[in-house]
Amino acid sequence: MNKINLEEKLSLFSEHWTPKIIEELNDYQIKLVKIQGEFVWHEHENTDELFLVIEGKMKIEFEDHTMNLEAGEMCVVPKGVRHKPMADNECKVMLIEPRGVINTGEVKDNLTAENDVWI
Amino acid sequence: MNKINLEEKLSLFSEHWTPKIIEELNDYQIKLVKIQGEFVWHEHENTDELFLVIEGKMKIEFEDHTMNLEAGEMCVVPKGVRHKPMADNECKVMLIEPRGVINTGEVKDNLTAENDVWI
Repeated sequence: MNKINLEEKLSLFSEHWTPKIIEELNDYQIKLVKIQGEFVWHEHENTDELFLVIEGKMKIEFEDHTMNLEAGEMCVVPKGVRHKPMADNECKVMLIEPRGVINTGEVKDNLTAENDVWI
Repeated sequence: MNKINLEEKLSLFSEHWTPKIIEELNDYQIKLVKIQGEFVWHEHENTDELFLVIEGKMKIEFEDHTMNLEAGEMCVVPKGVRHKPMADNECKVMLIEPRGVINTGEVKDNLTAENDVWI
């Protein structure tokens, strides 16, 4: 049983779009990711996905609107909903989703990150 | 699909030890709770439970040690592990656990909160 300090964990990596697992909750994983620039349009066919902004600002583009999120704000993207995360400047985000979810969903892209990387 | 501002949601209630649901992630619920004083010893037989401190400081007593948590720190209490949350001063906490979890676990107490209360 570990006490986890988010800031400390975020200091352990610097690359963008590579979610790092910091803890598990039953079969769910708590991840931290740093994002900057535009991600790829994708969806997660079988699961919702939680975004909680820890520091900075991000946007999530959906097919019919764009959601702006800043520190202390969160959103659950429902399963099957196409979305594209983006951030003009570096943004630090907590993600929560079931174990094994691929960051780019159904899309294979050079932004597809290695899975199950713990920090 | 809602954008959720944690501070705004926390402004909507003032009582202690009564978790409020702010969102669902598949069959999991994201809750906010304000705590002050001592909770009851209890455990959740079938699920882990995530505590993320949003503001303030709290402690979680376990049978063999005490964990101190402050804003930006989190802990997952494994299923079946007896614990007692407490806070000297008001502390604002995010909880994540499967839908339907009772705050006092197996214990029936005057701190047992009504379940499935959304804000």
